[in-house]
Amino acid sequence: MSQPLRLGIAGLGTVGIGVLRVLRQHAELLQTRTGRAIEITAVSARDKGKDRGLPLTRYAWEGDPVTLATRDDVDVFVELIGGDEGPAKEAVEAALAAGKDVVTANKALLAIHGQALAESAEAAGRTIRYEAAVAGGIPVIKALSEGLAGNDVTRVMGVMNGSCNYILTRMETAGLSYEEVFAEADALGYLEADPQLDVGGIDAAHKLAILSSLAFGTKVDFDGITLEGIDRVSIDDIRAAADMGYKIKLLGVAQMSGRGLEQRMQPCLVPDSSPLGQLEGGTNMVVLEGDAVGQIVLRGAGAGEGPTASAVMADVCDLARGLKAPVFGRPATSLSTATPASATVAASYYLRMSLEDKPGALAKIATVLGEAGISIDRMRQYGHDDTSAPVLIVTHKTTPDAIASALSAMTGTGVLSGKPVALRIEDV
Amino acid sequence: MSQPLRLGIAGLGTVGIGVLRVLRQHAELLQTRTGRAIEITAVSARDKGKDRGLPLTRYAWEGDPVTLATRDDVDVFVELIGGDEGPAKEAVEAALAAGKDVVTANKALLAIHGQALAESAEAAGRTIRYEAAVAGGIPVIKALSEGLAGNDVTRVMGVMNGSCNYILTRMETAGLSYEEVFAEADALGYLEADPQLDVGGIDAAHKLAILSSLAFGTKVDFDGITLEGIDRVSIDDIRAAADMGYKIKLLGVAQMSGRGLEQRMQPCLVPDSSPLGQLEGGTNMVVLEGDAVGQIVLRGAGAGEGPTASAVMADVCDLARGLKAPVFGRPATSLSTATPASATVAASYYLRMSLEDKPGALAKIATVLGEAGISIDRMRQYGHDDTSAPVLIVTHKTTPDAIASALSAMTGTGVLSGKPVALRIEDV
Repeated sequence: MSQPLRLGIAGLGTVGIGVLRVLRQHAELLQTRTGRAIEITAVSARDKGKDRGLPLTRYAWEGDPVTLATRDDVDVFVELIGGDEGPAKEAVEAALAAGKDVVTANKALLAIHGQALAESAEAAGRTIRYEAAVAGGIPVIKALSEGLAGNDVTRVMGVMNGSCNYILTRMETAGLSYEEVFAEADALGYLEADPQLDVGGIDAAHKLAILSSLAFGTKVDFDGITLEGIDRVSIDDIRAAADMGYKIKLLGVAQMSGRGLEQRMQPCLVPDSSPLGQLEGGTNMVVLEGDAVGQIVLRGAGAGEGPTASAVMADVCDLARGLKAPVFGRPATSLSTATPASATVAASYYLRMSLEDKPGALAKIATVLGEAGISIDRMRQYGHDDTSAPVLIVTHKTTPDAIASALSAMTGTGVLSGKPVALRIEDV
Repeated sequence: MSQPLRLGIAGLGTVGIGVLRVLRQHAELLQTRTGRAIEITAVSARDKGKDRGLPLTRYAWEGDPVTLATRDDVDVFVELIGGDEGPAKEAVEAALAAGKDVVTANKALLAIHGQALAESAEAAGRTIRYEAAVAGGIPVIKALSEGLAGNDVTRVMGVMNGSCNYILTRMETAGLSYEEVFAEADALGYLEADPQLDVGGIDAAHKLAILSSLAFGTKVDFDGITLEGIDRVSIDDIRAAADMGYKIKLLGVAQMSGRGLEQRMQPCLVPDSSPLGQLEGGTNMVVLEGDAVGQIVLRGAGAGEGPTASAVMADVCDLARGLKAPVFGRPATSLSTATPASATVAASYYLRMSLEDKPGALAKIATVLGEAGISIDRMRQYGHDDTSAPVLIVTHKTTPDAIASALSAMTGTGVLSGKPVALRIEDV
């Protein structure tokens, strides 16, 4: 029988307590599956006295996660503190320097410092596992880096922030404004302390940056992501999109084109009959595309105690079984530096504008689009009571540059009331 | 740099050629990802002279797969011959006896002989990998055995035969009978040489038997599966189910109850708004449920050259990276013998019958259901031109035993024209 695998767990919030629960409830099952006992040597958290609903006296307590990370009787440091600086980063660095493997759920840390941490880990002959950092319980890191290892990955997409998907779904079903649903979600505790992490798309973009690196063999490049949050999505857009057969999702897309690595996290339209279009509420979905496998869709809970603990435990079990794989799917020193490309891949666009009720107004807009080389697939003008009419246009495939120049020219026609809205329609 | 991993590939049909293509196109990528060159030493197939669209002269040729499997210069034997007896079985046994790891896409072989082969492999310190045996390109073996390793798995479900799903989808969209669509599918080459493997549910049941073993730690038990094919699904049932908000799928379900391991492969109703209900055409879907992770849904191509080759290559890459895991997720000698249980878990049922046009006929049926302890959730009687009326009933949750006794009693009432149909409505 192999030696037990000894864990040091830092951070006893929802996820940390979930991991403790799994380890206590399934000790025997885990040993049967991995061939080794998995033990907790010591734990660390800010407040020792807090009632966490579980007795902790059987574990050694460390006030300082760095001390925990470097204990001789710890084989694997499990970092569940969070945050891209401060104690989480210091403790992970200390653990790697001390020759420990690391399991973390910390997407921000990896999105910002992933390259340096991976190089440290691999120089020390160690690894960092982070299944829980992306899409909660969905084993997407494993699917992408191991399940699709024989593929040239062509595109990765995902709805990876449950709070945003909840807000967009709730706006549609209840017919409420963004501001109303945001206030609801905040009151229900669905949002991060800094809600911009959710609604600004930052949390989801951290996850996308990690998936991009795994998919394309590039160094994690969070700053290369084109980032737009959901705060500019109006209930009018949601209704109009639904009327044309689409849903609006905060969708992350990463793909490599001749001009570089395109990474976008922005509100997009997807067909309402597609798996992404049918995804409601707080659930996450990741779509992986490879040259051999075609399209794989993975769906599951993106957050919560159980799902996140499940992902952490998958990594712990892999380490217990002796898995040794590079952090980002290939040696960190072999990862290339991506050239960030804006959305160069052509797409159809959804345009919504409010047209002043003047003769020839629509002709001016159609002319502007034609001059930008954009052809119209579908158009709808709705009835109206006041002096301007809502007009929706779905274009044929065109480039983001053409759309930007058309929007600018439209504003100059003098026939629009307010600013036009343009949203990309992602081919899914 | 590690030594190259040397493959011997037996079987050069669609999948074998797909694997060769991936190895040729992505040699460098695979080496970067796994840290080792992956080489093909020798290949084997029935007909050496056949044009397979790829030059094979760079590989040694073996007429006999057993000879290939035992070559000193082969590390991993890749079995892509198929069939649960004959050359596939002999060559896999020979490979294990000679101390090789095995990668196979052969669901029948594992469903019938999996336990004996796993014991042989593990006694020799080797393993068998079979990602391609279940649901084609979907990395479901990996998701279940590694991604959900921290979970007590509670249920596994899946639509795992693309031909059956194609037939059922096409019946609905084209309004054609089972016989008409079967003939179409056969003419298009969508069915196995023995179509009962597809439409009889045998192929899908092989896959379910493998998933059950991984999920519940039981010895593969193909014979313990309650098996019904799709040939008894009529276009009337598909239409009536659609009218009540359901789709009919050939659904495999495995779950452990107090009475034992329940494994079913049978046509079931699922809500048309569920991921399983929305699955159209030849695509596969597997649903995994665990106590921590909740529900994970995986969707992708279940067959075809690229997807199946992708799965084979995932296994090859795992072996190249040195992964050593037991064949069925825990040591074969520790797997328990399952007690097969018929469907003891309660469910709602869909009942369709043709009621003779007599006063009191419906009352007799309602009485029979009440006496069997079955309560009615919804009922519809359709208009009719002849002497009998179609009646549909959706029951509240009840047991299969109660349904069986009610069906038998109904037949005795003398008010039915023809036999009543009962289909389980699976909670998804």
